[in-house]
Amino acid sequence: MPPISEHALIRRYFAPLAGPEGLGLTDDAARLTQEPGSDWVVNTDMIVEGVHFLDDPPEAIAARALRVNLSDLAAKGAEAFAYLVALGLNDSCDETWVKRFADGLRQDQDRYRVRLIGGDTNRTGAGIVVSVTAIGRLPAGSMVRRSGARPGDSVLVSGTIGDAALGLLLRQGQGLDLGASARGHLLQRLRLPEPRTVLAPIVRAYAKAAIDVSDGLVGDLDKLCAASGAGASIDAGKVPLSGPARAALSRDPSLREAILTGGDDYELLFAVAADREEEVIAKASEAGVEVTPIGQILDKPGTAIVDAKGNPIVLERRAYDHFEDHPR
Amino acid sequence: MPPISEHALIRRYFAPLAGPEGLGLTDDAARLTQEPGSDWVVNTDMIVEGVHFLDDPPEAIAARALRVNLSDLAAKGAEAFAYLVALGLNDSCDETWVKRFADGLRQDQDRYRVRLIGGDTNRTGAGIVVSVTAIGRLPAGSMVRRSGARPGDSVLVSGTIGDAALGLLLRQGQGLDLGASARGHLLQRLRLPEPRTVLAPIVRAYAKAAIDVSDGLVGDLDKLCAASGAGASIDAGKVPLSGPARAALSRDPSLREAILTGGDDYELLFAVAADREEEVIAKASEAGVEVTPIGQILDKPGTAIVDAKGNPIVLERRAYDHFEDHPR
Repeated sequence: MPPISEHALIRRYFAPLAGPEGLGLTDDAARLTQEPGSDWVVNTDMIVEGVHFLDDPPEAIAARALRVNLSDLAAKGAEAFAYLVALGLNDSCDETWVKRFADGLRQDQDRYRVRLIGGDTNRTGAGIVVSVTAIGRLPAGSMVRRSGARPGDSVLVSGTIGDAALGLLLRQGQGLDLGASARGHLLQRLRLPEPRTVLAPIVRAYAKAAIDVSDGLVGDLDKLCAASGAGASIDAGKVPLSGPARAALSRDPSLREAILTGGDDYELLFAVAADREEEVIAKASEAGVEVTPIGQILDKPGTAIVDAKGNPIVLERRAYDHFEDHPR
Repeated sequence: MPPISEHALIRRYFAPLAGPEGLGLTDDAARLTQEPGSDWVVNTDMIVEGVHFLDDPPEAIAARALRVNLSDLAAKGAEAFAYLVALGLNDSCDETWVKRFADGLRQDQDRYRVRLIGGDTNRTGAGIVVSVTAIGRLPAGSMVRRSGARPGDSVLVSGTIGDAALGLLLRQGQGLDLGASARGHLLQRLRLPEPRTVLAPIVRAYAKAAIDVSDGLVGDLDKLCAASGAGASIDAGKVPLSGPARAALSRDPSLREAILTGGDDYELLFAVAADREEEVIAKASEAGVEVTPIGQILDKPGTAIVDAKGNPIVLERRAYDHFEDHPR
C-alpha cells in the first residue's frame, strides 16, 4: 500500500459520502436524533474475501456489502437510511482501490437513498473484509418478524429464485449448456444482489412474517416456519425462475435442488393472509417487482416441497450455509 | 472447525447474551424504540488478528473488540447500552473458542452494563476479524465533539499514558530493564484496554472537546486541536505515568517519545474551562479515576510539547497509525 494515512483516506474518499449524522466523519462517531413515532431496525453483516467474493471489482464488493444489509432491513419492512462500514484492507488495496470502493458506495447511496454515518479502516495481513451495519426506520410497532405466519397464510416470494446458485455452479466451472447472455445473467445475479427495498412498505403493510432469502429458499422458509411454530408446503413448479434458470433446468432437471436450496438470492419470502394475496401481488407489481405465490403455511411443522402432481420432493440438503460451505 | 452450524453457535453461545432489542437473535436484526429527549451515538471499530492482537485468549479478543468501542463512546460523553458483533472466524476457532469468546463478551456485558443486540458469524480463510458496532445514549444535544476546545482551556488526561506503548516494546522483545511484575503491568495494559466509561457523565458535563487516546497522546491531541481550530502546549513532565513506565523512563530517557506517541492507551483526553479544572479532577476522583492537567489550549495551531524548563521537545513522529504500522 502506498503511504497514505487512514486519516487521509477517510477525508478524501469517505467524508464526502457522509450524511449529517456522520459529522463529516471527523469524530469517529455518529449522532442520531430520536424520532418519536418510529422504531429503528439495526442489522450487521460481514463479507469476507474468498467466501462471499473473490477478485470482484471494488465497486461490486462495496455494493454487495451494503446490499446484503439493505435486504435484511427490507425483510423487516424497514426503510434503510444510514450505514457504517468497517473495512479491513490488505496490500492489494491501493489508493485507487479505495477510491473505486468509495465510488461503489456512492452509487448505491444514490440508488437506495442511504448515507454513510461512520466507519473504521484497518489493514489485514490476509484477505479483504467488509463489515456493514445498517439502520432503517419504520412506524413504531410495525416491524415484521419471522414469527408471525399462521396456518392458511399464503407464501409469496419476490423476483426469481436460484439464479445466484446457478451462477455459482458456472463460476465453479460448470457450463450448464447455456449461451453467453444467459450465463452473464446468472453470474451477475451471483455477484451483485438487488435488494428488494421497494417492497419494504408492502411487507410492513401486509406480511405476517418475512425473511430475505440469503441461505436458499427452502432453508430460509424452514427458519420462518420454525420461528412461527408452523410448517409450510410449497409447489416447486410455482417457484419463479428466470429465463436462463428455466433453460438450465429443462436441460438438467437435477439442478432443481441447487435452485431451491442455493444461497444468495436476496429475494423476499413472506407470508400474508390468503385473502390479501391478490392485493399484495398488485401492489408489488405497481412498485415494479413481481411477487409470486408458491405455497401455504400449514399447521404441521417442517417445509414440504411438492411437484406439480402433489408428490413430495426429497432434498439432500436444505440450506446453503456460508459458515459451513466454502463456495467460491 | 468441527461441524457446527452458524445457527447452532448463535443459539448456544450468543442468544443468551441478547438484550430485549436483540429479539433473541432470531431475526437477524435488532429493534430499537426511540427515546425522546435522548440522542444516540453510534461507533464501529474492527480489530484484526496480527494487527490489533496476536494469539490472545478468546476472552481477551472479545473484550478488546468491545472495549475499544466503549472508549470511543465515553469520549463523546455517551453511555453505551447495546452493541452488535460481526465475527470472522478461521479454522483455529473451534466450538470451545467460540464459547470462550462469548464468555468474554458476557463478563464485559456485566462490567459495562451493555447488551448484545445483533451480529453475524462468518468464516475467513485467514486471520480472525471482529467488528463491533456500539450504541450509546446521552441527553439530546449533549454530545461532546472534538471541535469545541478554545484558547485558555485546560487539557486533562485520565489514568496513565504510555503503558501500552511500552508493553508493545516488551512484546517486540525489548526488556526495558524491568522486573516481572512491572513487565506484566505494561503487557496487560497493551492487551486489554480499560475504557473510562465512568467518566462519560463528567465529560458530558464539563468537556468542551474530547477524544480517546488510541493513536497516541500527541497525535490524538493534534486531532482535537485541528478539529477545534486551535493548538495546545503540553508539559511532558506532567503527563501521568504508571510506576513501571516511570521506572523504564528513568533508565532510558529515549523512551519518552514512545510514551508520548504510542497507541492503545484508551485514556480520555479532554479540554475544560480553566476555572473548572479543580472541580473536574475532584468529580473524576470520586468516580474512581485520576485525571491530570497536562497543558493548555492555545490560539496558535499545532501541539507543542515542552519539558519542565519550558524547552520544546521535538518528536520524530507524532502518532501511532494502526493503518500504516504493523505493530505486533
